Amino acid sequence: MQLLIDRIRKEGKVLPGDIIKVDGFLNHRVDTALLSQLADEFAKYFPIDKITMVLTAEASGIALATICAQKYGVPMLFAKKAKSDNIEGGLYQSDVFSYTYKKKVTYIISQEWLHENDHVLIIDDFMAKGNAMQGLVDLVQAAGATLEGIGVAVEKGFQQGGDRFRELGVPYKALAVIDRVDGSELIFRED
Amino acid sequence: MQLLIDRIRKEGKVLPGDIIKVDGFLNHRVDTALLSQLADEFAKYFPIDKITMVLTAEASGIALATICAQKYGVPMLFAKKAKSDNIEGGLYQSDVFSYTYKKKVTYIISQEWLHENDHVLIIDDFMAKGNAMQGLVDLVQAAGATLEGIGVAVEKGFQQGGDRFRELGVPYKALAVIDRVDGSELIFRED
Repeated sequence: MQLLIDRIRKEGKVLPGDIIKVDGFLNHRVDTALLSQLADEFAKYFPIDKITMVLTAEASGIALATICAQKYGVPMLFAKKAKSDNIEGGLYQSDVFSYTYKKKVTYIISQEWLHENDHVLIIDDFMAKGNAMQGLVDLVQAAGATLEGIGVAVEKGFQQGGDRFRELGVPYKALAVIDRVDGSELIFRED
Repeated sequence: MQLLIDRIRKEGKVLPGDIIKVDGFLNHRVDTALLSQLADEFAKYFPIDKITMVLTAEASGIALATICAQKYGVPMLFAKKAKSDNIEGGLYQSDVFSYTYKKKVTYIISQEWLHENDHVLIIDDFMAKGNAMQGLVDLVQAAGATLEGIGVAVEKGFQQGGDRFRELGVPYKALAVIDRVDGSELIFRED
């Protein structure tokens, strides 16, 4: 999606360790008008009329998933990082190694809010190695729900996360794929 | 706001320790249509045309703050819980004791994204003792920005958090105030 690529080129920064910083518009300060455009773009790639739920992971996926869910007229569910005692009863959970935080994170969702008759679109802001995404896919499977698609705003194509999910047999779309980082320059994959 | 009160009465649950669970529509599975209505209601109480930024705290405030920011045509900024090494450079930070997690949480925002010419509306899903809210107010002050208002969806009125902010001299609005819990019954404050 050229609009997003242009925005990343203009405002993104490359930090040591090939960290791509887009926190001025995507995952710290959030440009809600841009998110609306991303949600419209995702709608071209997924069977929106079948979807009953948009699923994401806290925290940085929530804003984009919320706008998508609002546009598609369905609820948004976000997997929580386990730590609170506020969630009672039955949980689905999946363990994920987070490279951002250098530790294991356990994602949980309440069994109350995801069911086998749900048709789920997973939305996240970022994909690197795909571990968090795998955790979300596992939660959908644990609930016996149907995965209808996976959408991410920015994929770091050189970390192979996306390829895992392209092979899953469900629609997968990354709106901007960064193929490599050359110094401070980002090389994007052609659409 | 009667719509929200009715929804809490219908679907909210009271857990031991006077924990009010509204995770079916507000802070785990999120009813995005309801959030749109809450955002419209907030707009009656705040000088929306002055606001340049909606500020909230991760994770459960993000969905509501996103919808508000989208409606008001401004960016949304969420304070992060300190832990990632992805945020470079200058930060504003505030320490908060979280009763939910029984530990100190440090909220951070990048100095890059909040400035003294910003006019900030703080939005959160829930207020109990108001510690997280105080942390957000501190961040606005640290940036030298102007606080234009504070909006929360649900206030636990019996935990005194709201009273602190009613005395701040800026518009404060809680859309549903729970005055007390009587067994499993919630007693709401009259509007």
